[in-house]
Amino acid sequence: MKTGRPSEQSRGLPVITLLTDFGTADYFSGALKGMVLSLNSSAVIADITHEIPSHDIEAAAFILLASYRSFPDKTIHVAVVDPGVGSSRRPILVSGGGQFFVGPDNGIFSYIYESEPVHLTIHLTAEQYFRHPVSATFHGRDIFAPVAAALSKGIKPTSFGTVVTDEVRLEPLRPGIKGSKVLGRILHIDRFGNCITNINHENLSKEKEPMARLLVNGKTIKQFKTFFGEERGRENIFAIWGSAGFLEIATSNRSAAELLNAKRGQAVILTVDP
Amino acid sequence: MKTGRPSEQSRGLPVITLLTDFGTADYFSGALKGMVLSLNSSAVIADITHEIPSHDIEAAAFILLASYRSFPDKTIHVAVVDPGVGSSRRPILVSGGGQFFVGPDNGIFSYIYESEPVHLTIHLTAEQYFRHPVSATFHGRDIFAPVAAALSKGIKPTSFGTVVTDEVRLEPLRPGIKGSKVLGRILHIDRFGNCITNINHENLSKEKEPMARLLVNGKTIKQFKTFFGEERGRENIFAIWGSAGFLEIATSNRSAAELLNAKRGQAVILTVDP
Amino acid sequence: MKTGRPSEQSRGLPVITLLTDFGTADYFSGALKGMVLSLNSSAVIADITHEIPSHDIEAAAFILLASYRSFPDKTIHVAVVDPGVGSSRRPILVSGGGQFFVGPDNGIFSYIYESEPVHLTIHLTAEQYFRHPVSATFHGRDIFAPVAAALSKGIKPTSFGTVVTDEVRLEPLRPGIKGSKVLGRILHIDRFGNCITNINHENLSKEKEPMARLLVNGKTIKQFKTFFGEERGRENIFAIWGSAGFLEIATSNRSAAELLNAKRGQAVILTVDP
Repeated sequence: MKTGRPSEQSRGLPVITLLTDFGTADYFSGALKGMVLSLNSSAVIADITHEIPSHDIEAAAFILLASYRSFPDKTIHVAVVDPGVGSSRRPILVSGGGQFFVGPDNGIFSYIYESEPVHLTIHLTAEQYFRHPVSATFHGRDIFAPVAAALSKGIKPTSFGTVVTDEVRLEPLRPGIKGSKVLGRILHIDRFGNCITNINHENLSKEKEPMARLLVNGKTIKQFKTFFGEERGRENIFAIWGSAGFLEIATSNRSAAELLNAKRGQAVILTVDP
Repeated sequence: MKTGRPSEQSRGLPVITLLTDFGTADYFSGALKGMVLSLNSSAVIADITHEIPSHDIEAAAFILLASYRSFPDKTIHVAVVDPGVGSSRRPILVSGGGQFFVGPDNGIFSYIYESEPVHLTIHLTAEQYFRHPVSATFHGRDIFAPVAAALSKGIKPTSFGTVVTDEVRLEPLRPGIKGSKVLGRILHIDRFGNCITNINHENLSKEKEPMARLLVNGKTIKQFKTFFGEERGRENIFAIWGSAGFLEIATSNRSAAELLNAKRGQAVILTVDP
Repeated sequence: MKTGRPSEQSRGLPVITLLTDFGTADYFSGALKGMVLSLNSSAVIADITHEIPSHDIEAAAFILLASYRSFPDKTIHVAVVDPGVGSSRRPILVSGGGQFFVGPDNGIFSYIYESEPVHLTIHLTAEQYFRHPVSATFHGRDIFAPVAAALSKGIKPTSFGTVVTDEVRLEPLRPGIKGSKVLGRILHIDRFGNCITNINHENLSKEKEPMARLLVNGKTIKQFKTFFGEERGRENIFAIWGSAGFLEIATSNRSAAELLNAKRGQAVILTVDP
């Protein structure tokens, strides 16, 4: 995605991002920042979001997918949506696409595995990098933030534990194909009510757009736009290629999700007339 | 505003602020931060807010006005409330008051133009500073953040494009004058329900406060206070000079906006008895 | 709390945290950041939260208590929940536990005083460190942020004013003891609906857990869990030692606060059967 200019990279203070379902009203996100800074105050901390709906692993996986490529090489993403904290679910570190991902092995990195098929996953077992005592309820503070801070100081991924290959995975990101139909779904509904599908440019080339139709919740969408404010006829609902690289369903002036009564996960079927 | 002490300035890592209507639950603000850090990881990123109501350019203009003077010289403010993204509206860079402002030419910098009459506005056309491909839906990530990062590394404003003088402007910030009346309006309602008007010290001197009356939504306000907790008689609603330099309407213990049933834009008429 | 590894400390850019009731939709938190960076752009600013309920000093005191120990030595915490701004309430600076705390003298640092009995409190009177003119409504920007910035540059605490020992204090953090009963209360209800009590390990040792019972709002809780996802019988509501060091009341799959119809401040009585 970072094609063309601007190509110059910066000198590289280590960047550590935070992506959680902690909200911003509690002490949890502050505690993460404190732990990182306690161990490496040169780290640049960037909040991606703390507003993932509670325990919604799939939402976190999407937000991480949509934002990680904007960050510099060697960025360390700490992702904590962790309903299984304290159980036997594994804490892991993933190295892929020139970046690092630290969090629970519950599927939160599924879309990274698909986007970066060449990756390395480490089960975090080297307890000397943890905060002690390790609580049973807040591994974000006690395992993931300290490991991210250690990684940012140059400790090698393989120092943190043992390689695993059987990571937990969510339903695949890529849509199914059935004959000439693409069986997609809504991955995410954004703040503006735009419905981001999992249909990508491989599923629909530019030339075939005029013959394409999308079926969502009983409604058919045939109009494509290139930007939101564009006026093109009276149809109110349209498809548009979004900034995350996926086909989105949107309207000019209200929430497409509301108009379609659509939820995340909703089927979106793409057909192309011959 | 930065009069008196403390006068010492710091050594000056470049500060880049973010002010958007993206909310904090999506990937948008994270993507902005990532782009900035990809190009200049020495930049200090400060979120002003991502909670501007969707597409509310006037709200963004006010928040920027109320906060920019607190930031150091050379700060770069990235302001993205951009309903026209992808259309022919121009992306611009404004240099004024010793600071920089990057965003769409839709009025978002109106109050900066009024506060800093000596300013330079550049239409951003030098595409080598953009992220490519430039999406039609997310110029924050693809144009504004990369330009801000380049600017923070010392590229001159005029390198980014051509000078323009016909910037889009909102309704003027300054109140109208009709005879002895000042025809103000509510610029902003803050979290506490305080109504911030556009009436400033030039419109009402300290000595004339005892003779002043404010008319808002059929109610007359005659009491002035100097701080919120101050008790002064039984009147519940009062005027107070706020921290943004404007006259505010407030109450001791509840939302003045609710009490007055007032909205942003509501007329506030100031008269001074002779 | 920062026992065991990881023990290495970082080289120490000064960290300044922000904890307020300003929300994130207004210009207030941006103005704080701007003032800090205007005076020390090397400072690393970390938002703890801006979502303290308006004027809720006790909530701020708890969040600060629960997060400060995660931060490095010499961290400066700026805490602004300040309904008395502009009145005669004192602005103060507290040095304790190797860290600093700047804010109003209204009880917001009460739990720090209890946790760090050896501390020094300074009434901020050295106006040369303030922003001038000092507004009567926004001491966060005009006093607390500039003092924090000056402190971060090495100015000694005693340079900012005079020592005081009669700080304003909230109801004590520690629970009362009546015979064999511990008379606790709910300190905080977190995002997930967990009820964090003020009962700590000194009040209940691990060995006595099997004999313990908690009485809250007419309900008795006897089950203890060690992590949230743990299944242990059919009982739905349980006690768990939380990451802030206190006993919490939680459920497996919904809000314990809702289930108990519990509010902050609610009595929680602990008895241990002989």
